[in-house]
Amino acid sequence: MIASKAARSVLIAGGKQLIDFGLRRAHGAEAGLLAARASYLAGFAGTSTVLAGMAYDIPIYGTMAHSFVQAHTNETTAFEHFALAQPENAVLLIDTYDTERAAHKVVALAPSLKQQGIAVKAVRLDSGDLADHARKVRRILDEGGLPHAQILASGNLDEYQLQRLIAGGAPIDSFAVGTAMTTSADAPSLDCAYKLQEYAGRPCRKRSEGKATWPGRKQVYRQYTHDGRCDYDVVTTHNDHQPGEPLLQPVMTEGRRLVPVQKLTELRERAATQLARLSDSLRSLECDRPYDVRISHSLQDLARVVDQCV
Amino acid sequence: MIASKAARSVLIAGGKQLIDFGLRRAHGAEAGLLAARASYLAGFAGTSTVLAGMAYDIPIYGTMAHSFVQAHTNETTAFEHFALAQPENAVLLIDTYDTERAAHKVVALAPSLKQQGIAVKAVRLDSGDLADHARKVRRILDEGGLPHAQILASGNLDEYQLQRLIAGGAPIDSFAVGTAMTTSADAPSLDCAYKLQEYAGRPCRKRSEGKATWPGRKQVYRQYTHDGRCDYDVVTTHNDHQPGEPLLQPVMTEGRRLVPVQKLTELRERAATQLARLSDSLRSLECDRPYDVRISHSLQDLARVVDQCV
Repeated sequence: MIASKAARSVLIAGGKQLIDFGLRRAHGAEAGLLAARASYLAGFAGTSTVLAGMAYDIPIYGTMAHSFVQAHTNETTAFEHFALAQPENAVLLIDTYDTERAAHKVVALAPSLKQQGIAVKAVRLDSGDLADHARKVRRILDEGGLPHAQILASGNLDEYQLQRLIAGGAPIDSFAVGTAMTTSADAPSLDCAYKLQEYAGRPCRKRSEGKATWPGRKQVYRQYTHDGRCDYDVVTTHNDHQPGEPLLQPVMTEGRRLVPVQKLTELRERAATQLARLSDSLRSLECDRPYDVRISHSLQDLARVVDQCV
Repeated sequence: MIASKAARSVLIAGGKQLIDFGLRRAHGAEAGLLAARASYLAGFAGTSTVLAGMAYDIPIYGTMAHSFVQAHTNETTAFEHFALAQPENAVLLIDTYDTERAAHKVVALAPSLKQQGIAVKAVRLDSGDLADHARKVRRILDEGGLPHAQILASGNLDEYQLQRLIAGGAPIDSFAVGTAMTTSADAPSLDCAYKLQEYAGRPCRKRSEGKATWPGRKQVYRQYTHDGRCDYDVVTTHNDHQPGEPLLQPVMTEGRRLVPVQKLTELRERAATQLARLSDSLRSLECDRPYDVRISHSLQDLARVVDQCV
């Protein structure tokens, strides 16, 4: 679910950098780590969760906290201290008190930082109308001699907010996505489950109202359009060969793994390749045509036979 | 969030037994354990997660799986094998193929089980119109000489479904609640965060748009109505004494715990006591009057002073 939601964000971000900021509201620390991994797999640039970076070799991104600013008696000192502590990563959080006033403070501070060899890498906006603040701050930075300082936006973002900000042309270079993605807020669970399809060589299935399954061992054949996009899938019994690419392959037999573990970077490349093969409709947030999955005659026949035996 | 959602379920369940069935769709194994603990704390009777039962000393409940039925060539044999394996907990899942037909099979099997000293403890409904199935199955069990066999319902339940089933008088004795509660599906996160309120003796606060906080060390005084219900809270500075019960107390100072760890059973009792003190409106699913939280003059004055210093 998290990877799907992250993939949707990547698809509409049009190459802009996305970063996972979701740890603090994940459903526990483990869920936060898994979300960082899933979002990187789906194409995010990295995560603010340091342990996930270490555990899965994911690039780590981050900026200062509001508490860092508040712990200082004024913002300029906070910015200076942060830049000195993180000279290669001077991403300054400017919304603690007043975003535009803070942007002017950054401009005023920049020359003395430059003398010490430190460039302001980016500023972070985290509240209010992000598009409006981004335009005003971009102008302040440009006019203040900081055209290379980027703008990072955060604050209750999801794929719909990203689409709105990007479509509106807001001058934002990177987006940090947190709670909504890490908790998969609008679809926090996937209503599916493993179900027994065969036992001791005998195909079987559930027929519970609204929860019926198809019986027996299966194969899924994917059909592509002439330009290589996914067209439709056919679900059939495992020995009924159909045109197209067979998708299912055994990964374990008699307790032994049959294929090597794939690295996260390989999975990430595969996800990107597969996403590129989706139709334009499936790649948009407003999918108007669900993917076509067909059930073969042989599978329908098997279900009839199985039902007669129970 | 999970505890709040579980508490809402408990409040509208009117004493009917609730069980956590949510592990399989939790956001990771850790989240599943924490959800089992949170729902028990809020008043659930127990959980189907065995490890949570062992880790937190929570009663464990469960029934057979659909795969257990499917692994047998007929339902009656599956019911018999389960009852023999779990003679004290013969809760039979009857919706795998046809709920009412399975109820008749349970009735037909019951005498031979009784001869072996086994009583059918309950049947579980897991699909379709639960209220309708419960009425039909209740009649089949009663007419079949099993008036003491209870009915347990499960299947995408949440507090609103519980309210509907209970208000409709469905003859269901226990409810197993899963995905919607464990993932807090309609409110999967709580939009709050720790924020710095004082640093080195200096009160401070954030003023970010829509995210401003109140500065300084605080105390909260709770006012009660004449019948002991919570009436309203006053948030004030820590040394501004107000009428009512002070709610905040230090739990740690200089790295040392000041109060002993409370047992889960104590927390559960406390939760029940506190829930009983909520107004009828707050105890309903459709709260028409949000709880009244007031900010004292002294806190407002402090905010003004703090703002002048930044």
